[in-house]
Amino acid sequence: MNTAVPSLKVHSDDNVSIVLTAGGLPAGTELDTGAVLKEDVPFGHKVALADIEKGGAVIRYGVTIGLALQPLEKGAWVNEHMIMLPEAPHLESLKAPAVAPKSLPPLEGYTFEGYRNADGSVGTRNLLGISISVQCVAGVVEHAVKRIREELLPNYPNVDDVVPLTHSYGCGVAINATDAYIPIRTIKNIALNPNFGGEVMVVALGCEKLRPEMIMTKGDDKATSMYLQDEGLSGFSAMVDDILLQARMHLERLNNRQRETCPVSDLVVGMQCGGSDAFSGITANPMLGAAADLIVRAGGSVMFSEVTEVRDSVHLLPPRAASADVVEKLVSEMAWYDAYLDKGGADRSANTTPGNKAGGLSGIVEKSLGSVAKSGSSPIVDVIGPGERLRRKGLTFAATPAGDFVCGTLQLAAGMNLHIFTTGRGTPYNLPTTPTIKVATNSTLAARWFDIMDVDAGRIASGEISVEEGGWELFRLILDIASGRCKTAADKLGIRNDLVLFNPAPIT
Amino acid sequence: MNTAVPSLKVHSDDNVSIVLTAGGLPAGTELDTGAVLKEDVPFGHKVALADIEKGGAVIRYGVTIGLALQPLEKGAWVNEHMIMLPEAPHLESLKAPAVAPKSLPPLEGYTFEGYRNADGSVGTRNLLGISISVQCVAGVVEHAVKRIREELLPNYPNVDDVVPLTHSYGCGVAINATDAYIPIRTIKNIALNPNFGGEVMVVALGCEKLRPEMIMTKGDDKATSMYLQDEGLSGFSAMVDDILLQARMHLERLNNRQRETCPVSDLVVGMQCGGSDAFSGITANPMLGAAADLIVRAGGSVMFSEVTEVRDSVHLLPPRAASADVVEKLVSEMAWYDAYLDKGGADRSANTTPGNKAGGLSGIVEKSLGSVAKSGSSPIVDVIGPGERLRRKGLTFAATPAGDFVCGTLQLAAGMNLHIFTTGRGTPYNLPTTPTIKVATNSTLAARWFDIMDVDAGRIASGEISVEEGGWELFRLILDIASGRCKTAADKLGIRNDLVLFNPAPIT
Ligand SMILES: [Ca+2]
Ligand SMILES: [Ca+2]
Ligand SMILES: [Ca+2]
Ligand SMILES: [Ca+2]
Ligand SMILES: [Ca+2]
Repeated sequence: MNTAVPSLKVHSDDNVSIVLTAGGLPAGTELDTGAVLKEDVPFGHKVALADIEKGGAVIRYGVTIGLALQPLEKGAWVNEHMIMLPEAPHLESLKAPAVAPKSLPPLEGYTFEGYRNADGSVGTRNLLGISISVQCVAGVVEHAVKRIREELLPNYPNVDDVVPLTHSYGCGVAINATDAYIPIRTIKNIALNPNFGGEVMVVALGCEKLRPEMIMTKGDDKATSMYLQDEGLSGFSAMVDDILLQARMHLERLNNRQRETCPVSDLVVGMQCGGSDAFSGITANPMLGAAADLIVRAGGSVMFSEVTEVRDSVHLLPPRAASADVVEKLVSEMAWYDAYLDKGGADRSANTTPGNKAGGLSGIVEKSLGSVAKSGSSPIVDVIGPGERLRRKGLTFAATPAGDFVCGTLQLAAGMNLHIFTTGRGTPYNLPTTPTIKVATNSTLAARWFDIMDVDAGRIASGEISVEEGGWELFRLILDIASGRCKTAADKLGIRNDLVLFNPAPIT
Repeated sequence: MNTAVPSLKVHSDDNVSIVLTAGGLPAGTELDTGAVLKEDVPFGHKVALADIEKGGAVIRYGVTIGLALQPLEKGAWVNEHMIMLPEAPHLESLKAPAVAPKSLPPLEGYTFEGYRNADGSVGTRNLLGISISVQCVAGVVEHAVKRIREELLPNYPNVDDVVPLTHSYGCGVAINATDAYIPIRTIKNIALNPNFGGEVMVVALGCEKLRPEMIMTKGDDKATSMYLQDEGLSGFSAMVDDILLQARMHLERLNNRQRETCPVSDLVVGMQCGGSDAFSGITANPMLGAAADLIVRAGGSVMFSEVTEVRDSVHLLPPRAASADVVEKLVSEMAWYDAYLDKGGADRSANTTPGNKAGGLSGIVEKSLGSVAKSGSSPIVDVIGPGERLRRKGLTFAATPAGDFVCGTLQLAAGMNLHIFTTGRGTPYNLPTTPTIKVATNSTLAARWFDIMDVDAGRIASGEISVEEGGWELFRLILDIASGRCKTAADKLGIRNDLVLFNPAPIT
């Protein structure tokens, strides 16, 4: 009888494999990959499959994820203390491919039920979003939202919710600074998200730097704005009443909408990960990649993001670029972020978290390879900057920071109508604006957080389902959630996180 | 009969005076200062009292607030389009005074009723503050807070409220960046604010970069922390229940506290302005200055802040510095901020807002002179950096950005137990952690926002009360509010704004 314990080796060139046994494995255990553990190795961590000399490459996914800082014996635990990051890929070396990558074969016959908007976009929810020009009004708006939920919403049964789009920008900021365009266009574009049905409603103060006209589209005659400093508004109740009055007009129109059958090409799915572990790159992220391919094949839009996570495997992307323009924009966004970090005295090593390391990820390269797996295998048709709106259907790299709330907020500004979030360590993340499907990378987390996670991708590691099957399962769930046929776990619980703007400019 | 209309000239050297008539004054009006208006001039705006040639000084408060960009005739409206900012005072030229400034005479016999803490500080409210190590847990904490308010607080009648100290820091940030110490010490010090009674309660996730031990004081055996990723916590309700369990322990102890009579030396008053107008510098801010002097005379602590507002009249401060060390720290904080703005492609002109200008403030110098008036006339005993705790009683300059929420959050970290906020344009600002007295600079605003403002400083402009009388009135109100004998207007309305951290470091 063979007592060798299963472990996970992703690529034939790899010289490490991953411990898959809950609780880890003790010294002396023989792995199916041939190594006998020299010491106790925790769940999700790497084991050397051969002797690796000092300075030798540690290889996972067939790629060098780091260089050994010390000689590593076959069977040794390989963690972040033992490896040095390889140099980041030079941006100048990135070139468009000589032959454009092939598109995936089309996929027909899939639809969802959504709310069609005047601009052609489609909402997966029917929400009233209330924008603010400045944080000063947030407290009043939150009072108004409470009253709208209690007093108005019951009269508008087709409207799912009202969401205050509060933020901490608008005044006390350097509004003319070089990078101020980022938070400003983000605020403007969030209000145009398909889930708000084209009903832009802005509550302003009156003396702020960010003027409502800077975040409203000229000629949008359904848009409304009001100022708390309006001379006609005497006292707090008058302000709140006026917000309710404005809200009623928008709710009236939103309530008249009905879901209709829409092609998958109207889906805009934003993908993200947070609290990754060693499983992220082999279970949840490949599952998302498989689902991303199905959405793209069916004509839909998918975004992957998180610049600091993509940075260290950026050399894998140009061969997938649909045009030279895509490579140029990719290089430009990466260079911008390199400079941004440098100015603040930080660098790419700042990305990995203690949780990543405890989960078995030894550095940003390893994390990066797993993170890029979310993007699947289709050509990259475009790259957009932080806060920009999506321009094309297909797979787009939306250049955003990796922090969950900032990334989600920027994908929202890009026009996302469905969000997928993978987590290995566990984070109770949810956007109030967009259904957020949460995928656990391992079955332990999925079981423990049974009411917070939507999908258990750990079944891929245990062999219960294949990556492809996982992709189809997720694809079908996306269509169900997008159609309002069911709710995400976090929406059922009513978890609502605040949006967080990316403001690289100084405050004053 | 003399038909000349009253206007406001602050200093005998001034060559402008301010229109005090609601709605402004039409061309042809004769002012009491001798000028006849050449054109319509809005309320709060400046009128030239003599011909000023191109390049000539425009003088207010006896100080040059700008240089004329064009010849200005006697009776002309003088606004921001017509004047150029003078050069910022050079920091190298700032020196400690040869003779230390005299302390103000002591003031005895005033007390308030507060909650004495183990560390000697005194709370003006008895609040449970719940700190978070990372934004990921905010949604869960907000659920828990709702349940604590509904289910637990009724059993602890001596506890005023529970406040989630949520923020957007903790992960997805460059935690080792040069300036990361600022948000980290801010989070740590906020939990130690006197209004939380020394009961530090931290809700963490588990995989974040900001470890709970980085924001908790070693050896504080009343402090508690918990991790949502704890393996013992299965599902959302278990998490919320665990937060409630932890909260109950702290509420039990908080509920056993009683107010006791405390000297004014236990007060820590933070002063701030937001949405200023031309009246700020002549009514509300001098009234605060007078109250600040009374508090300092009675042994208490007062902070003034807002680096970008003080920057342009910083040369007025060294003569008031209690030691050479104070001047050194002042210069160092100003230089740090100059460099911070410069790095982001901004400068001090970024401070004034459209509202300031519409309100009659032509630039940062004019705003600055008014803003510094809040500090009164006592010696400056110390300067602290953003997020630092207050070290000494008396008047301290707490170097913070001017944005209302960021400034308030940093004053909270410094140990503020009472907040005073002046506004001319009107802002419905309120901290949930600290009573915030709101002072209107003009009677029009005080009347229109009758239920949001606490004090009408406009009575100083109309001659109804003197600055000194206003200072005494405010001083007495401070003692009443600090003692819990009455509530601020914004607390009665239940306005609760979120805290906003100052994070000058990059995010990842
Ligand atoms: Ca991530
Ligand atoms: Ca993320
Ligand atoms: Ca909030
Ligand atoms: Ca101010
Ligand atoms: Ca302010």
